[in-house]
Parts: sequence; structure tokens; C-alpha cells
Amino acid sequence: MKKIVFISIIISLTLSNLAQDLNNVQLPHMRKQLVRKAINIPDILGYKTLKCDFHMHTVFSDGIVWPTFRVDEAWEEGLDAIAITDHIENQPSKKYVGGDHNASYEIALPRANEKDIILIRAGEITREMPPGHLNGLFLKDVNPLDTPHVKDAIKAATDQGGFILWNHPGWKAQQPDTCLWMEMHQELFDAGMIHGIEVFNEKEWYPIALDWCLDKEIAVIGNSDIHDVNAHYYDVENGHRPMTLVFATDRSEQAIKEAMFAKRTVAWFDDKLAGKEEFLKEIFRKSVSFKDTGKERKGKKLILAKNISDIPFILSNGDQGFTIPKQSEIIVHLKGKHSSYMVLNLYTGSDKNPTINIK
Amino acid sequence: MKKIVFISIIISLTLSNLAQDLNNVQLPHMRKQLVRKAINIPDILGYKTLKCDFHMHTVFSDGIVWPTFRVDEAWEEGLDAIAITDHIENQPSKKYVGGDHNASYEIALPRANEKDIILIRAGEITREMPPGHLNGLFLKDVNPLDTPHVKDAIKAATDQGGFILWNHPGWKAQQPDTCLWMEMHQELFDAGMIHGIEVFNEKEWYPIALDWCLDKEIAVIGNSDIHDVNAHYYDVENGHRPMTLVFATDRSEQAIKEAMFAKRTVAWFDDKLAGKEEFLKEIFRKSVSFKDTGKERKGKKLILAKNISDIPFILSNGDQGFTIPKQSEIIVHLKGKHSSYMVLNLYTGSDKNPTINIK
Amino acid sequence: MKKIVFISIIISLTLSNLAQDLNNVQLPHMRKQLVRKAINIPDILGYKTLKCDFHMHTVFSDGIVWPTFRVDEAWEEGLDAIAITDHIENQPSKKYVGGDHNASYEIALPRANEKDIILIRAGEITREMPPGHLNGLFLKDVNPLDTPHVKDAIKAATDQGGFILWNHPGWKAQQPDTCLWMEMHQELFDAGMIHGIEVFNEKEWYPIALDWCLDKEIAVIGNSDIHDVNAHYYDVENGHRPMTLVFATDRSEQAIKEAMFAKRTVAWFDDKLAGKEEFLKEIFRKSVSFKDTGKERKGKKLILAKNISDIPFILSNGDQGFTIPKQSEIIVHLKGKHSSYMVLNLYTGSDKNPTINIK
Amino acid sequence: MKKIVFISIIISLTLSNLAQDLNNVQLPHMRKQLVRKAINIPDILGYKTLKCDFHMHTVFSDGIVWPTFRVDEAWEEGLDAIAITDHIENQPSKKYVGGDHNASYEIALPRANEKDIILIRAGEITREMPPGHLNGLFLKDVNPLDTPHVKDAIKAATDQGGFILWNHPGWKAQQPDTCLWMEMHQELFDAGMIHGIEVFNEKEWYPIALDWCLDKEIAVIGNSDIHDVNAHYYDVENGHRPMTLVFATDRSEQAIKEAMFAKRTVAWFDDKLAGKEEFLKEIFRKSVSFKDTGKERKGKKLILAKNISDIPFILSNGDQGFTIPKQSEIIVHLKGKHSSYMVLNLYTGSDKNPTINIK
Repeated sequence: MKKIVFISIIISLTLSNLAQDLNNVQLPHMRKQLVRKAINIPDILGYKTLKCDFHMHTVFSDGIVWPTFRVDEAWEEGLDAIAITDHIENQPSKKYVGGDHNASYEIALPRANEKDIILIRAGEITREMPPGHLNGLFLKDVNPLDTPHVKDAIKAATDQGGFILWNHPGWKAQQPDTCLWMEMHQELFDAGMIHGIEVFNEKEWYPIALDWCLDKEIAVIGNSDIHDVNAHYYDVENGHRPMTLVFATDRSEQAIKEAMFAKRTVAWFDDKLAGKEEFLKEIFRKSVSFKDTGKERKGKKLILAKNISDIPFILSNGDQGFTIPKQSEIIVHLKGKHSSYMVLNLYTGSDKNPTINIK
Repeated sequence: MKKIVFISIIISLTLSNLAQDLNNVQLPHMRKQLVRKAINIPDILGYKTLKCDFHMHTVFSDGIVWPTFRVDEAWEEGLDAIAITDHIENQPSKKYVGGDHNASYEIALPRANEKDIILIRAGEITREMPPGHLNGLFLKDVNPLDTPHVKDAIKAATDQGGFILWNHPGWKAQQPDTCLWMEMHQELFDAGMIHGIEVFNEKEWYPIALDWCLDKEIAVIGNSDIHDVNAHYYDVENGHRPMTLVFATDRSEQAIKEAMFAKRTVAWFDDKLAGKEEFLKEIFRKSVSFKDTGKERKGKKLILAKNISDIPFILSNGDQGFTIPKQSEIIVHLKGKHSSYMVLNLYTGSDKNPTINIK
Repeated sequence: MKKIVFISIIISLTLSNLAQDLNNVQLPHMRKQLVRKAINIPDILGYKTLKCDFHMHTVFSDGIVWPTFRVDEAWEEGLDAIAITDHIENQPSKKYVGGDHNASYEIALPRANEKDIILIRAGEITREMPPGHLNGLFLKDVNPLDTPHVKDAIKAATDQGGFILWNHPGWKAQQPDTCLWMEMHQELFDAGMIHGIEVFNEKEWYPIALDWCLDKEIAVIGNSDIHDVNAHYYDVENGHRPMTLVFATDRSEQAIKEAMFAKRTVAWFDDKLAGKEEFLKEIFRKSVSFKDTGKERKGKKLILAKNISDIPFILSNGDQGFTIPKQSEIIVHLKGKHSSYMVLNLYTGSDKNPTINIK
Repeated sequence: MKKIVFISIIISLTLSNLAQDLNNVQLPHMRKQLVRKAINIPDILGYKTLKCDFHMHTVFSDGIVWPTFRVDEAWEEGLDAIAITDHIENQPSKKYVGGDHNASYEIALPRANEKDIILIRAGEITREMPPGHLNGLFLKDVNPLDTPHVKDAIKAATDQGGFILWNHPGWKAQQPDTCLWMEMHQELFDAGMIHGIEVFNEKEWYPIALDWCLDKEIAVIGNSDIHDVNAHYYDVENGHRPMTLVFATDRSEQAIKEAMFAKRTVAWFDDKLAGKEEFLKEIFRKSVSFKDTGKERKGKKLILAKNISDIPFILSNGDQGFTIPKQSEIIVHLKGKHSSYMVLNLYTGSDKNPTINIK
């Protein structure tokens, strides 16, 4: 707020140097300033950590915003890349909103260029289970995916070099009882037609899908699937949408595509990070440092724990637990010599957390 | 946040009674709850104080949201009535978005009914200055306003019993030097074709327009003219959009229309209330109470000032000033016997504030 | 923030009328304004609902603030009455801080008078379990409680008409295994020497103590026991300290005392209200109203639920649950005819919630 | 909030593995977690940028908190060093609070050691104007400063190698008309007995004192002079107390002392930085980077401006102005070729701002 106030003061100073138009008083402090916030997550293993959301809708299917707004949101929330994935087969606004399946991409592209957001051409193949909903990403033309048979649609995407993402595998509308890997999914997988699976979608978390990804070498993905205004659905002041961290050689569409086919991804939502142990441990190691203060209180060692990232870390050794909030330091009162802790918000499997040591 | 957390706990309790699906974990605390906030402004003079915004856009002209979202926003922000006023002559999305000039109204209406928001059929006649931009409100059919000559368009609105609102009279794109009442505005006014004028629009304030309204008995109006997502443009957590308070006999479209033609309105933005003295003083009187504590400190009387409204009041007697924030009490240290104060954020003219007495 | 900004503008306007001292620029917007926030909880059953905290410390025992600050905090947080209860037997600052056991009361009293906070003279008898820690409230002189034998100390309080409150009965430092009602507590109770028990203390909740209170007709109490700065320990922006709602005939010390001996109290913390069903149901009834909108969506009735209090209410019928946040309205999509709901955050026993009906 | 919620979930998970004591339910999410926030201001010119406050009070003079709390506040707010400067001649609590003039230092020191806050032994010589109030910093023993004649008191400080700071030179209680450098100040300065002057104190800003400092080679200082709880007086969530940035060779008391005698300081308050141009420009240069996006909109170049510090910067070239908020990026629409901007919130004199160039 202070910033905004300042602007107002400056502007009045500026105006007072001119012939001020007292009949039109600007109240710029009433308008929110458009600002890009940084998401602080360290780069790891020599790769850049890019923040991506590969699933969202606009008025060109059943979303409620114009495509350019998806770029604006992404820019403000600190993302690097997005894919607009309007439904190919489900366009309830068709009576009013037209254009081909590339329209939302083409409308959003100039804004994306202006704001340096990587915009990935994409579409959502929207079918009954199996196989359910699948995003085709990194397309050259979305229109060929509009074809009656689902396998033809998928092939139309892979023929373009597309990445096939199985969306919300545990969505109750399609899997009411439990989350199953069906015969058709196996067929598609064997045919090289499933490259990623969402373990987080909208406000859901599918632990079993994480196990599938890690067992079968499939990319672990988290996406918003936002239809609403993102900041209206999620609390983006204190939290963030579901997203995918992609460990890429550089900040480019090509590098993201390479990283995703190479399965160098982690999904992030609600303080939960899900993915391969090597990635999660490295994010922890680059985010958190411990320092022995050399002091004690009531027989417990005082350890300074400092977290430079935007991810809080929740540690427990069964007996004692503590959280190191994002971007801050805490003093931990360490009992005994138990220096081996599980990090409970890092998931290297549906029921597995990595263990770290405090030296 | 706490509320949301609670929900999550309940839901897990509930689920634990069922066969819980561990493969689909709901994280409902990550979703913002849809809530209607109250705007606390007292009813006055036997009328209901309705909160209204008569100027906003959707994808059906140059706005970026679907019409139903305008209803959702209004409901959440505590409004009673809105008018969607898509430009009649300016539809940059026409290549993609079709439908006639009633489309945004018709799409939004079922949502408005569901949420008990009064939706007023309207359109914006969008012309060069003079006369500039004019909203036709309380229409039966927007399409007849799509006609070449501006006076024909206005007549098409008044023939339906419409209310004509002169929008942003001081907008620099159309009045670059100052804010002028032109010959054509006089003609329209004489012909009974200007019923209201915006003194607040978007983030602007036109003091001279308030004088026009009070001199000529024209309704004082404040509107957002929002094209963006409202909560993305304004800080609706701590503030509010520009709006019009309408003093109506009941909460109905008919009563709003009657009140507006009878000029029973006040415009509200940025803690500024603009309108007739009788309305502003009455809002103050019903919002603020003073109580002598009977105590003194350093020769000053301690007075308890309590404000039950959502409008802060800023008082000054030239020598001493204080603000009574919204929804709170303060202790005022009153010097001497100066009990006559101007309320600096109430405007009964471009440079006039009403005076109140502390007893 | 906006309010504060306004003040700054006013003050500069004011100063510009004087010979402004450019060498001393006031930045009043940098100082938080002292404001009393209202706690909105309805009066019930013909009584006033007073918000009270009967347990807190200052530098005169092991707290870290000066007594006047306890009054300032209480005023700002919307409380009606407090008792400063410095330990009688535990004063670690004694080397530096002196005065008799009435000192903190006497220092705080002028401030309490000025701010119209009811200040209750009190002290904490601080002994090993049993009986543990006991507050003597409504005392005339705290000094007689400074006597070797605990029963003498209690008697010194009851001889003055004092109210005896058993503090934090389940505190692990004194009841490491579980929370027990010991023989000595029975003796004291039989002798009329236990009038209230804390069910909430600091950040703890003792469900069994609620059962004791309701079984034995003892007043249900919630207190902060704050040693720290209250707003440093609790999130008073979004939440509140533990407190006791006292249903009193008027806003006076005498009426609070009468109500407490008559057991007309409810304890409030963390959205939990604990106490007699008649009080809790009445608070709910006066806080929440339901209105059938007459509309349906997907076969569910749309009901408007409006909560005018600062207490959220969490409802569940086993099958369906929802929360009505404080000070807001929501639209509930009501399945079938299940109109009987438990209010999960109201406790009429350690594992009992009252049931309400939506008509 | 989310973090805290997590803790609660973990703890319940942990407890469920033990025999849970249902009679004592911990509600740890109701307690604010103690966290040290980072203040992000870059190191410059090979020095460490330390954040210091050299002026504050406790119950040992007229403050309202216990000395240890000053350390806790400083730790949480990200400070490196503080001096507790209780009044030597003004102790209104003396009836209740005793100890010699070193007491507050000695009480706070163990806490400072534990939290790695540099605690500087100090006291405030509290006299009428001239010379007004003076802090003696870096003392070995405060007691010798308790002597009748002010010059003796100052000499008692300088004899110990102390740094003499002239506090709030423009305070209206002592300089009601304007802010004057009096004969006695010249004498003291000539005798090497004024080493620093506060340009910010509490909520005041003395522009003329900045000119004195820069003309006479005196250290520029900003301090809180806090008597209240710091977070109760200032909005430490969105802002910060007045403080002094000290450019020191390392993070130690000795290095701070050396830097202050060498005048390597800048004062910071309310987004205003005051000090030598070389320091201010270097802070700007290390905080802000500009990047030409290569794009244009409406004939204006789009420049990405990124600020990694916690200081917003407010730029103007007379014609066009913008603010780069803390820790964020904005897109600036740059008109014409005016690439030379004044930074309006950096003060290199009472009415001087440095100029920077956008390349």
C-alpha cells in the first residue's frame, strides 16, 4: 500500500508543475499496480527451475476469461510457461464464441511475447473414461485433434511431436470408486502415447498416480485446470496454484519440451512437492541451511535453520517436529542426537518421504 | 483462513466414516470459499441504501470476462444491483464473439436470479465528444440503440423509459484540456435526455461534475466502468470499486429506477462520498456516535467516537483533525470547546464539505 | 491503510495553512492508529454478552509488559473486562521489580478508567498439583493471599467474596499423563472453593474439564494466560485470544461477578464455543438466519445462509457439510430434505455438539 | 497461515502414534510461529549492509516492555544490532523498577547471545535543549554518565570511546519553532563530541539535519526511539521501523563501531533512504536491473524493471513517473528517449535526489 501512496504523492507533485486540471482528479492509489512476483525456488543440478502450468481454459471452451488474461495472471504469479488447453469437444459457449481450435493460442500469443511468458500451443482431448481427458502439448496445429476417434486424436498430437498428458486420473466424475490404470491406458503407454500424468489438478491430489509415474518413468505433473479467474479460485497472496517445476537447460519452449520428455519435473501444490527423490532432496539442500549456534537451552541445542525458498519444509523424526517457513529463519531446540528427519511435505511416493540429516 | 481449515478437518472426519478413497485426496482448504461480504452503510430517511454499479463490460464488447462473472463479483462484493453496459459501437472481439446487444444481459440473467442480484438491462452509446459516452439504463431491448445518429440512439433509450447517464465527462481522451459542459449537453439536458452524470469513474474523480449535478438537479453517480476482473483492478479486500448508493423504497429494480429519476443517489469511491448535503449528513449521523467519557488527559476531554459503517470519516476544525476508521471506536482528545468539525471526505460540492457538531 | 493515508493528507493540508516547519516533517501514516475493534457476538436471553479475559501477567510476575499495556491490548481487541493475575509465589523479576501484590492493579487502574475497561483485582495462587494454579478474582486486597498454606490462600480470597478459578487443569507440567480431578479438588469443590475451571488456556483445550463444569455446575472459562504481548502470541488480525463470554445484566464489574457465580458463561477459542446448550443454541439462533431463495440447481435447493457474528459456524449432517464464515452470506446447495445439522464447532460436552434445523 | 495448519496436522499425526491424551488438545496453529524475516538490502562497496536501531526504551526507563523483548523484536524484524538506551535522568517507574543503569543491558545480553543479535551497551543523556537528548553508544559502563553536568556526562561517554548521537534534533517539545543548530552543538562538535545525528526518529523526518550531516561529515542515523511494543506502533508486516544501515567490514560490534565513526551509514524509513550519494546510488544499482524487452506498445518501449530489494524505488523524469515495488518486476512503458530519472525516495540532501540512467 505504501508504494501506491507514494505514487499518488509524486503524481500530485508532478501535476503541480503543470497547469493542473482540477476537474479530473486521478486517484491512482485506488488501482492495484501490476507487478510480477518472484517464485523463489532454487535451480538444481545445473538446470533452471521453470514454473509451469500446462492446463487451463478460456471463453473458447468453458472458461470465463479472455485468453490474454491467462498470460497476465501467469506473469503476475511468477510463472515461466503456460499452455491454454481449451476443450476440443466441449464448447458450451459455441453459440456466442467462435474461431478454430487455435484461436485462444493466437489471441494470447502477442501478449505472451510482450511479457516474455512462454506460451505452448495445446488442446484438451475430452473423452469418457477410458482414457478420460488428455492434453496434447507442444502442438503445431490443434485442429487435427478434432476427430471422432480418441486414438486418432492422440495420434494427431504425437504426429506433431506432441507431449500427451493424462489429466486428473482420479477425477470422481470419471472414476467414482477409485483411481484405476485401465487396459486402454496400458495400451496407450505401450504405444508411447502417455508422457505425463497429473498428480495435482485443481484442488485434488492423486497419490497413486505418483507411484505410477515413478514406476513407469512418466513425467510427474501438477496443473491448475483453471476455468475461473485464478486469483478468485486460489489464494495467490498466501499460496499458489498447482504447478509443474521443470528442470530445463534454459528458459525456452524447446528446453521445456526436452525436459518433460526426459521426465525432469516435480509437481507442487499446497506445500506438497511430489517427484523423484533426487530432485526433491536437491531442492531441499539448496533451500535450507542449518547452523549450530553453539548455545543450549534446557539441555537442547539451539540450531538456526534458514530457508531461502518459497516452500515451507515440515520436518519430523517421529518424536519431535518443526516447520521451517518460507523465506525465513527459525531457531530449533534440538533434543538429543536425533539428527535424522523425514521431510513430511516432500513425496517420493504415495506414502514415502525423503530423509535428511541435520549436521 | 481458519474457516477454510476447519472445513478440511470436517471433511476428513466425514470421509473417515465412509470408505475413504485414498487415491483422490481433496484439498478443499486450497480453494477460496465463495462468500458475500456485507457493505455496512446505514439506511436513511426511511429508504433502503442500495449499493449499485451501473457501468461495466464483458467479452461482448472490450471486457475480458464472461457475463456471469460480473454477477458473481457483484454478489461477493456486497452489491445489490448492476448494469452490464457493453459498448454498442465498439466490439473489438466481434471476430470471435457474436450475439445481439442483449446477449450479455441474457447470459447473466439466470445467475443474477439465482444470487438475488438485480440485473438492469443496459448498453453504452459510445460516441465522440460531444456528447461522449452515454449509458442507457433500464432498457427493454438494447438493439434499437444501434443506430447511426447519436440522438436517435438516445431517443431509442428514452422511448423505452430509459435513464440516460453521461459517463466519465472529464475523461482526458475526450476532454484533454478540461471538463466542459458543451452546447450539445445543454440541448440534451433541456430535452430531458441527461438524467445522471458520473462523478467517479474507474479511478477518476470529476469535482466539477458534482457541481453540475447539484445545480441542475441531476443524479450523482459513481461507477467502475470495469473491463478487467474487478478484484484485479481494485483492492476489494481493503477498499471497494466506485459505486452509487441509491436510496430506494425497497430492494427492487423498479424502486431503483424511481429513486434515480428522483435523484436520491450518492456516489462513493476512495472514502469520498459525493452528493446532496441532506443525504451525506444523514449517513454520518446514522454511522457515527460520540460519547463523553467524562475523563480528561492533559486538559483535553476524552471523547469516544464510534463508527458502525464501512466508511471512515475524516474530521477537521482547522486546528485539530482525526479520522474515525470504519467499524471501530477511537478515543478523541478534544482541545478546548471547538466542537464544530468539517467532514473532509464528504463532498457537497467540488470544494464544499458539510459541518457537524460534537456534543 | 487508506485511512492512515488520508490522515497524512489532512495534516499536510492543515499544516499548509500554518507556517509549516519544513525541518520537522511528520509521517503520521507510519504510525498505526489506535482503534478499538468490535467483537460481534449477539446479546442473548436478555443479557449483555461481555467479552472477558481473567488470566494474564505483567512484569510484576513473569510477564514482559507493563500493566497499562494489558488495558491497551484489551481495549483494542474489543474486550469488556480483564483481570491481571500476577503470580503471588513466582516473581522472577523480583530483583528488579518491586511493589506489593496490588501494584499491577493499581498501575493499570487509571488507564482502565480512561478507556472504560472493567479491571478486576486478582492474583494467581501458584502451587504444585494438587491443587495446581488458582486465580482469585474480584478481590479487595491481593496481599492476604501471600500465605504459606494453599487452603489459607484460597480462604483469604473467598473471605473477600472472591471467585476461585482452577487454571489449566490439564497442563502437562502438572498433569503429565492425563487430566485428573483429584481428591483435593473434590474437597475444595465441596467447600465451595472452586467456582470456575478453564477449558481453554493459552493454546490448549481440555474437553474433560468441560464435562466437569457441566456435570457439577461450575462456570466454563476460557483465558489467555498471556505473558507475552498478546498480538505477538496470537494472530489478533484474523483470530482472537481465548476468552470468556459472560452473560451479564449490565456492563459492570458487579454484574460480571453475579453472572459468573450464576454460571452464565461460555468459553471461546479457535472458533470453538464451549458451554451449556441453551447458551450455544441461542448464540447460533441470534447469529445465523436462513432464507430459501426458491431456486434450485442440479436438484438441490439454494438456501441463503447469513451470519452476522464474528463466529464462523461449521455444520454437518454426516452426509453434507458447510461452513458459514463470520460476517458474511453463503449460498448452500441443500441436498434432499436433510434439514437437521450438527454444529461441529459448538461443544456442549467433550464429544457433544448441538443440533439445529434449517427450515 | 498454511504453514501453521500443516504443523497442526503433523502433530496430530504424530500424536496418533502415541497414546494420545484426549484431555489436553494442543491447538498449535493458534500460536504465531516465531520467525526471523530477512530484510533484503544488498551489500555494497565490499561492505556488509547491517540493519541497526540505536535508540529504544524498556521498563527500566519509560518504555513498557522487558529488555529481552527488545531482542526478540529485533530478531524477528531482521535487524543485526540494537542499542537499548534507557533514559539516565528520567525513570518514571523508579518506584517499582530498580537496578543500575546497566541493568537493561545485562538482562538482555543472554537473549542477544542466544539469537545472535549484536547488543550495544548504551544510555540516553536526557537534558533540556541545548543540547537536548544524546545517546552514548558502545559504552563499557553506563553509570558514570549519571552526573549533574551534561558535558561531564558526555565526557564520561567519550572517555570510554563512546559514540555520541544527537537524538531527534527537531523534536517540537524542545525545538518548537524550527530545528536549530545551536552554539552549544557547535562547541560539542568542535570538541569531537557529536558523531551522529538522527534524521529519522519515531515518525519524524528532519531534512535539515541531513544537510548538517553531509556538510559536517557526521554520521546519518535513523532510529525508532520505541517505547511501545514495536509491532504495535509500526506496521511491521508491510513496513518497518526507522533504522540505520551500517556498511561494515563484518557482522560484529567492533566493525559497526568502526563504520559509524567512519560515517558509513544511511538512514531508512518510510521508503525514504537518506545519506551520501555514493551509498544511495550503489544500493540502487545493486537492487534494480533494467532489461529492454525489444517490444513496443503505442510507440513506447517496453522495459522490464526488476527490483530484488525490500526498498521500492520511485522514479520520475518530470514528465513520466513510475514505482518499482520491492521484490518484484514491472513493465515500464518508456516514452521517447528520456532515460535520465530522479529517484524521488532517495535523499542526498534536504531537497536533493540522485539521478540514474536507464540504458
